[in-house]
Amino acid sequence: MTASLYAGIDVGGTAIKWMIVDAAGRIEAQGRAPTLRRGVAAQSTAIARRLSDEHPGIAGIGVICPGIVDEAAGRVVYASNLDLDGAALAEDIGGATGIPARLGHDGRAAGIAEGLMGAGRGASSFLMMPIGTGISMAVMLGGRAWAGASYCAGEIGHAPVFPDGETCGCGQRGCLEVYASATGLARRYRDAAGVDVGARGVEERLGSDPIADRVWGTGVHALAVSLTQMTLALDPERIVVGGGLSHAGPRLLDPLRAELADMLRWRRPPGLVAAELGDAAGRWGAAVLGARAAGASCYEAWEPLR
Amino acid sequence: MTASLYAGIDVGGTAIKWMIVDAAGRIEAQGRAPTLRRGVAAQSTAIARRLSDEHPGIAGIGVICPGIVDEAAGRVVYASNLDLDGAALAEDIGGATGIPARLGHDGRAAGIAEGLMGAGRGASSFLMMPIGTGISMAVMLGGRAWAGASYCAGEIGHAPVFPDGETCGCGQRGCLEVYASATGLARRYRDAAGVDVGARGVEERLGSDPIADRVWGTGVHALAVSLTQMTLALDPERIVVGGGLSHAGPRLLDPLRAELADMLRWRRPPGLVAAELGDAAGRWGAAVLGARAAGASCYEAWEPLR
Repeated sequence: MTASLYAGIDVGGTAIKWMIVDAAGRIEAQGRAPTLRRGVAAQSTAIARRLSDEHPGIAGIGVICPGIVDEAAGRVVYASNLDLDGAALAEDIGGATGIPARLGHDGRAAGIAEGLMGAGRGASSFLMMPIGTGISMAVMLGGRAWAGASYCAGEIGHAPVFPDGETCGCGQRGCLEVYASATGLARRYRDAAGVDVGARGVEERLGSDPIADRVWGTGVHALAVSLTQMTLALDPERIVVGGGLSHAGPRLLDPLRAELADMLRWRRPPGLVAAELGDAAGRWGAAVLGARAAGASCYEAWEPLR
Repeated sequence: MTASLYAGIDVGGTAIKWMIVDAAGRIEAQGRAPTLRRGVAAQSTAIARRLSDEHPGIAGIGVICPGIVDEAAGRVVYASNLDLDGAALAEDIGGATGIPARLGHDGRAAGIAEGLMGAGRGASSFLMMPIGTGISMAVMLGGRAWAGASYCAGEIGHAPVFPDGETCGCGQRGCLEVYASATGLARRYRDAAGVDVGARGVEERLGSDPIADRVWGTGVHALAVSLTQMTLALDPERIVVGGGLSHAGPRLLDPLRAELADMLRWRRPPGLVAAELGDAAGRWGAAVLGARAAGASCYEAWEPLR
């Protein structure tokens, strides 16, 4: 008898990535394909069917995407630029493969994966904040990934950290993303220095370029303000920083930890650590949802919740 | 046979208030006594014993206090000015009365009560923000009152809404309480106008006194910034404003609703309503905990959670 396998499919704007794992967390296979501009639901279903043909042991499939995802109804409410609005992805995949399937949100799925086998391991609560093109947050509280009343929890990229601050593309002012996303760091350096070096370039210039130091420092300050707000409101055991910017490691985490401790002087700040699963967190989380779709008891704890 | 009764005891800095209710929510008795400066645990236990003597039908007792309350262990970790640090209040009361008892946190208990029978009724998630001398928030998500990893969730009074803003007594700058608590409103008006009229006085001068308009407007703006942060992070179905300042009604809620809608232009703002139970919310919530201590199935939903 073949051991049960679980497939996770992470539908993103650029690529669809998948992973097939067993109950012990061993990776049986993984791969990726460029996301089509149209027909993404059909593309995802075709991938699921091919995986189920090639791996007869698959007992459950999890599929995740960004945007507004109604996990209970198994329906994508809204996914910007992804041609998935209204798609019943799990139902489509279940129908096409005959295998139980479950739909999830990419950020919450990544939070579930970090909680089970990554940087959130052992914490009864944590906030997982991916910082990349944008900034969001998975709200992981007491075994639940909180989705929000309208499945919009964690959209803190446009939270006003500096009211009356710089204008954001969203029309508001002082949004967190303006200062602290990879895009924001690159733009603010470019505006000040006249040259586009990307967020990585800003990071590489730290300590030798005062403009880079200033732009980076303001980004760290914006993150500290936001995380202070979140810590006071939610008192998480841990904060996990992920996304592209987390590769800066101590250059990001050391000053952020110091500022957070300073702003939370009268209480112990939560632990601040880098995410461990990188961009595989999403497909790991999707595979966990696949295991749950199969009714498997491996990968317990951390349920998506509204 | 007498119908079961449940006692709620709300231990506050000024007074200890109690209430005895039945399973249908009818109030059998209520009362209050000034809080002693020392021996508050013994005072609370004596009150519980007296209530249990006078009302033989009491099947469960809930007792609540402010501060840091470990509900699972039934222990007060820290309660500023209340001489209760380390007190095992529920155990004391249970031992003295022979009646099952349960300890809770006053803010979360008030949230539970508003959720069951007040302004949070029917909402699967809401934030309950009492605004008075200070500002805090009960985080009510999917049937749980989130307590936090160290029982400190909801302490948003010192969240930095205007970084680099006015200095707060806590040593930080731009804290929400500086601008929007009753104390803060009164102080900022006094600083500008040279006369102390209290928060109620500021409210009464709205529309006829430009200084009052400005101070009140800044307070509303600070609240809107904080609630925008919280809405983006948690996507609650509803926001319930309580505490002394909620008596301002439309003078507070109308401009706050308008600012919140403006700052959340690209998403629907949560409903914003005034709390309904006033300062009885705490003892109602305590009585609910009493019903749970008794194992009663009335007053379901909304569990304290860490």
